[in-house]
Amino acid sequence: MENDFYFRYPSFQDVHVMIFVGFGFLMTFLKRYSFGAVGFNFLIAAFGIQWALLMQGWFHSLDYTDGKIKIGVENLINADFCVAGCLIAYGAVLGKVSPVQLLVMTLFGITLFAVEEYIILNVLHAKDAGGSMVIHTFGAYYGLSISWVLYRPNLDKSKHLNGSVYQSDVFAMIGTLFLWMFWPSFNSAIADHGDGQHRAAINTYLALASTVLTTVAISSLFEKTGKLDMVHIQNSTLAGGVAVGTAAEFMLSPYGSLIVGFFCGIISTMGYIHFSPFLEEKLKIQDTCGIHNLHAMPGVIGGIVGAISAAAATNTVYGDLGLENTFDFTGPFAKRVPTIQGGYQAAGLCVALCFAIGGGIFVGLVLKLPIWGDPADENCFDDEIYWEVRQFLLTFAGN
Amino acid sequence: MENDFYFRYPSFQDVHVMIFVGFGFLMTFLKRYSFGAVGFNFLIAAFGIQWALLMQGWFHSLDYTDGKIKIGVENLINADFCVAGCLIAYGAVLGKVSPVQLLVMTLFGITLFAVEEYIILNVLHAKDAGGSMVIHTFGAYYGLSISWVLYRPNLDKSKHLNGSVYQSDVFAMIGTLFLWMFWPSFNSAIADHGDGQHRAAINTYLALASTVLTTVAISSLFEKTGKLDMVHIQNSTLAGGVAVGTAAEFMLSPYGSLIVGFFCGIISTMGYIHFSPFLEEKLKIQDTCGIHNLHAMPGVIGGIVGAISAAAATNTVYGDLGLENTFDFTGPFAKRVPTIQGGYQAAGLCVALCFAIGGGIFVGLVLKLPIWGDPADENCFDDEIYWEVRQFLLTFAGN
Amino acid sequence: MENDFYFRYPSFQDVHVMIFVGFGFLMTFLKRYSFGAVGFNFLIAAFGIQWALLMQGWFHSLDYTDGKIKIGVENLINADFCVAGCLIAYGAVLGKVSPVQLLVMTLFGITLFAVEEYIILNVLHAKDAGGSMVIHTFGAYYGLSISWVLYRPNLDKSKHLNGSVYQSDVFAMIGTLFLWMFWPSFNSAIADHGDGQHRAAINTYLALASTVLTTVAISSLFEKTGKLDMVHIQNSTLAGGVAVGTAAEFMLSPYGSLIVGFFCGIISTMGYIHFSPFLEEKLKIQDTCGIHNLHAMPGVIGGIVGAISAAAATNTVYGDLGLENTFDFTGPFAKRVPTIQGGYQAAGLCVALCFAIGGGIFVGLVLKLPIWGDPADENCFDDEIYWEVRQFLLTFAGN
Repeated sequence: MENDFYFRYPSFQDVHVMIFVGFGFLMTFLKRYSFGAVGFNFLIAAFGIQWALLMQGWFHSLDYTDGKIKIGVENLINADFCVAGCLIAYGAVLGKVSPVQLLVMTLFGITLFAVEEYIILNVLHAKDAGGSMVIHTFGAYYGLSISWVLYRPNLDKSKHLNGSVYQSDVFAMIGTLFLWMFWPSFNSAIADHGDGQHRAAINTYLALASTVLTTVAISSLFEKTGKLDMVHIQNSTLAGGVAVGTAAEFMLSPYGSLIVGFFCGIISTMGYIHFSPFLEEKLKIQDTCGIHNLHAMPGVIGGIVGAISAAAATNTVYGDLGLENTFDFTGPFAKRVPTIQGGYQAAGLCVALCFAIGGGIFVGLVLKLPIWGDPADENCFDDEIYWEVRQFLLTFAGN
Repeated sequence: MENDFYFRYPSFQDVHVMIFVGFGFLMTFLKRYSFGAVGFNFLIAAFGIQWALLMQGWFHSLDYTDGKIKIGVENLINADFCVAGCLIAYGAVLGKVSPVQLLVMTLFGITLFAVEEYIILNVLHAKDAGGSMVIHTFGAYYGLSISWVLYRPNLDKSKHLNGSVYQSDVFAMIGTLFLWMFWPSFNSAIADHGDGQHRAAINTYLALASTVLTTVAISSLFEKTGKLDMVHIQNSTLAGGVAVGTAAEFMLSPYGSLIVGFFCGIISTMGYIHFSPFLEEKLKIQDTCGIHNLHAMPGVIGGIVGAISAAAATNTVYGDLGLENTFDFTGPFAKRVPTIQGGYQAAGLCVALCFAIGGGIFVGLVLKLPIWGDPADENCFDDEIYWEVRQFLLTFAGN
Repeated sequence: MENDFYFRYPSFQDVHVMIFVGFGFLMTFLKRYSFGAVGFNFLIAAFGIQWALLMQGWFHSLDYTDGKIKIGVENLINADFCVAGCLIAYGAVLGKVSPVQLLVMTLFGITLFAVEEYIILNVLHAKDAGGSMVIHTFGAYYGLSISWVLYRPNLDKSKHLNGSVYQSDVFAMIGTLFLWMFWPSFNSAIADHGDGQHRAAINTYLALASTVLTTVAISSLFEKTGKLDMVHIQNSTLAGGVAVGTAAEFMLSPYGSLIVGFFCGIISTMGYIHFSPFLEEKLKIQDTCGIHNLHAMPGVIGGIVGAISAAAATNTVYGDLGLENTFDFTGPFAKRVPTIQGGYQAAGLCVALCFAIGGGIFVGLVLKLPIWGDPADENCFDDEIYWEVRQFLLTFAGN
């Protein structure tokens, strides 16, 4: 029973479902790009976890002496996390790139992720159990930067396919719900055994619950017709989980989690309504899934909340849960005081942003080479370019 | 490893999937109300768990001295259970109420649930691990009472939308299957550690398996055409899980579970065929999802089976599992003999019924006030009232 | 915490999801047979687990003295495994048999499985944690033999229904992904506690990841148009999990798993492209889901890989995981050397094949009797024979 398998495996499976079903189905919302959404998500995730096991293995073996890569369930979780960054980036370019471009994007993305993560967690000794900085901020700005470089001025040629139909929206809700339900497992999967893991799960659960309410409220209030918009329900309801990623295992109290979730629901939904059009028209960033609203802004907020929580560590009493502070200031950084730790957390956020934007621009330029078979402007968001599509409508010879 | 997290968290996640994917998708069967089914289910569940954590926290803190609300994984499970009652009630009024009405219904529902549960479990000291009485009986009669007060004589104006299409039935099967598969976790989630939890899971598994067979048999035998009806497969297959909710952790033997499941499959399917039309025409109760057949009748049966099992406790030998009786007669009720416990179980069932029907009528009257924006008779079961629906059919500019 | 429940229950639930959602939705790919796919899968699985609990209980009670059937979570897993064999067989005859025929097929299939499994595991003392031989080889050849006996020369009368539409392919991906994600739990569910279970999960994870890459590559390379085929993505991506079933808990190294998965992706996809037409035209075996490519060939490969791994046990160093050999040569076979064990593994594979083909031909002849209400050639692959189908297309009175 001492085997780490029994502590981590249920959380690993939840994270695994998020990566393959959660991300995969969340992107099926486009009316004629469901195969590409779920199929290419499957491809790049399966490719990414193998490359991530190797890359993370090499980096983590730097800390050990025998130089061998060891694989346990914690490494599988880390590989899934690593892949999550690339799948977030996929959301920005969904429907506009070829599978080969996706593989190149993933190859570089995983590599950048491994370096960035090593610097943030092992050099700066920042904490980021749920990956607000390491996964979400990095993944989102990586994807947005690539999308900025690959800007297509004539994308409205395929405008009629850049939207949902009734049933593709229902499919996307499968993705949303599995992401939403298992997010507490995501944020707690590699937290410290026992109370740390317990607390991270509970804080995430609370943040997510309050996000749903503000998302629905804002969606209804700010739409012209007063009706709810499925795009917001599918995406913004998850923003709270992103934003408590860093702080979930800290002494963020239940009320703190609820407040973070409350504001992230507002910010993310407002982002879809007001900021996405601005991003596309002024900054020339075409963001198919709106990852700026779901991952980028909440991720940065999460990094900042994490830095503040860490800096305020000694001053807070985590009364409701009766739990102690989780920082173990052992090893070379044993003497760090909370405010210093807060500074290192903020430094970690900057590292994530630099790697994301710098790496994204570089990879975007690589992907601009005319050798990757990307779709023409009028064929974007269309499965028929890369998939055998037998029949769209359910009609029959007989009737 | 002593942390309760490792005993309860996998079961919690299964229950969480039942609440959000199970209930949400089960209700997507209506041809044009899938957004409302899965979206409003999401809204009221996310709202409900927060309110339930507070309400249950206040009530449970009555038993402690420091007056603080403590949150652990068991509380999250209890909050999900609490919400389950309201989602069951939602099934009766699906498509006929506005989201604001749903929130009001949930607010009162959770409050009534917390009081009722406190009386049944902490005052009467009845046992109800899987909630046949506390969750299913309460939720179902609460919803049916509300639906009775909100009776719409001219509902057949939207009759053409009160039915399924091929693919909405397949979506609903996602809900059915996740409910069916994870029901053993539901009934065992808060059972006693070890053998109690183990036994509750196995008894539920067996009851559910036998329910499927009788549901299919009855559906085929009693339909005029001899064909199977998806409505029965989607709903009645779950009745066995409802009915062993109370008794699952008792000494109900494997054969007992199979027998309970066997009869519940028959009763629930016959309910859909014969009792639902009677309910609508004679009793003026319009029950969109047929919760009377899935939750109300099996819930009451479950309460009765629980009372009988408890009363018969010392006379039964739970030989096949080799497990002991689970009652711990400690505390102020240490001296209760099994027959007395059986009486208290029966009293618990009555409390659940009283709260459900009384509360439901009161809440129904509140919801009848003309201030909640409920849909007109001809707009029932239609997503377009509350949701931006972009396109129904998969047709394109191009073809 | 010593209770086996806490070691096995999370894996059990994953396996349960594979059986009901995984297999059920994988078969929904046919345009007009989704009810039959998910509904009959539900029926025969629910029937099968009850019969399997009894059959396996009787056989396992031979090893004990008190003659009683004991049920614990490990038995539930074994019952699910047993059912998996019959669901694989269902894939070969999907759309061409009546529900009564399916029940007969399951009744005999479970019985044959229980005998075959008892001989392989308890008489020959072969090891087969993930069931490459016991489950996949047996189930696939059992189904193929039945399909051979039930050959329909005029099946092309319902050719227009033997294919997918866009959204049925997306539904099928739900099945594929849940099978793919939870396969590590399947192969490790009954492995030895601790390292054995840990290693089986990791080896399966790696094999599956590499299978996805070769499946996509081969699908794209060998299709005339260079486009990907959803049939391959839905099925061949799972072949690696089948093939490491036997060897997963052995000292198969991570690289060994990757290599097995790599080749199985190639073989399985090539099977769909080249071997399935040959099977139908020359051998007169109509294999609706292509189980020959997904289960039969990878299953046999898995049995062979298992025999080789067992035989090579002492010569390999499982360095990367730092784990010891899992064979415990206790009991009557304590003195077996690895090469002898390898021979017994190979014998196990032969037993599985004999039971499958012999049993399949016998059951096929039984099912050929004209009393089971099977569909006419022109009604194959059509739900309307056995199900009330209300409406196929999403059209309305109003528009």
